[in-house]
Amino acid sequence: MNASCDSRLVDNRTPSQEATLAQRAGDLLRARRLTLAVAESCTGGGLGDAITDIAGSSDYFLGGVVAYSYEAKERLLGVPHDTIVTQGAVSAEVAGALAEGARRLFGADLALGITGIAGPGGATPGKPVGLVYIALATPRGIRWQRHVWGGSRRQNKRASVRAALQLLIAHLEGTV
Amino acid sequence: MNASCDSRLVDNRTPSQEATLAQRAGDLLRARRLTLAVAESCTGGGLGDAITDIAGSSDYFLGGVVAYSYEAKERLLGVPHDTIVTQGAVSAEVAGALAEGARRLFGADLALGITGIAGPGGATPGKPVGLVYIALATPRGIRWQRHVWGGSRRQNKRASVRAALQLLIAHLEGTV
Repeated sequence: MNASCDSRLVDNRTPSQEATLAQRAGDLLRARRLTLAVAESCTGGGLGDAITDIAGSSDYFLGGVVAYSYEAKERLLGVPHDTIVTQGAVSAEVAGALAEGARRLFGADLALGITGIAGPGGATPGKPVGLVYIALATPRGIRWQRHVWGGSRRQNKRASVRAALQLLIAHLEGTV
Repeated sequence: MNASCDSRLVDNRTPSQEATLAQRAGDLLRARRLTLAVAESCTGGGLGDAITDIAGSSDYFLGGVVAYSYEAKERLLGVPHDTIVTQGAVSAEVAGALAEGARRLFGADLALGITGIAGPGGATPGKPVGLVYIALATPRGIRWQRHVWGGSRRQNKRASVRAALQLLIAHLEGTV
């Protein structure tokens, strides 16, 4: 058997894009002595998974909430019920409220919030499959991004994780 | 280029072991009309990520907490401070308390708790790298397992996710 055709070997030896981004974000957080928390809806834990693939991530990562149900978003993270009703669970406002809720809940310096429609179901008028809002809560306020991915459920989840890490890196590098 | 040598294609087309287990667990939860929550320490969100890779998982998955810090374990999930001090954060008792805490916090029928030492650091006397406790909280009580994995950090995390899903499946199938 040709080892180069063994996807398990390739997976283990080549860092994924997520791992490379998580390492970079972790290095920046450690250098700046900042802590991080996350609140994930459509990524379901994938962002925390990527962050904690880095050895020593407990130095800066405090934890996260996977808020899959409306109730979890409202009760655990304090997302206002009216915001979900008027803006929809997949909206910039809810992404920001998720991030701010995680920042407060864990007492972190920074927090990322993600909400979206991973697919294949769940689209509504004006909100297609692949629509994802990502927010970063900081002591100075919230910044957010909107993306529309075109992949499979798994691909859309991973693209969202990468985008969240890129938003964090850009903030820490002062380039946004 | 030989497509069979492209790990990305292999990854996208061949369901991972985690995906197969998550699908089976999801089918059983849906058939029995039961809801699930998770509390993850060393897996960092990987269990929730695997569960939510299944389309329609919002029918039974309510959410989770990634409790990486001691404070998150105690304050969010109600793990007794004394239990962490006397048994250690990586113990059957803390795994059980994490699972029971997630079950209560999300109002779920069942909840999984995971705590362990993914490595490469973190070993203590009597607690080697790769040691992981997994607990399942049910209305009738808590059952738990102890594992010692021998892989890399990433491999140990994934093995823990698979073991947690297998514990849940065995419970739902009535084989444990």
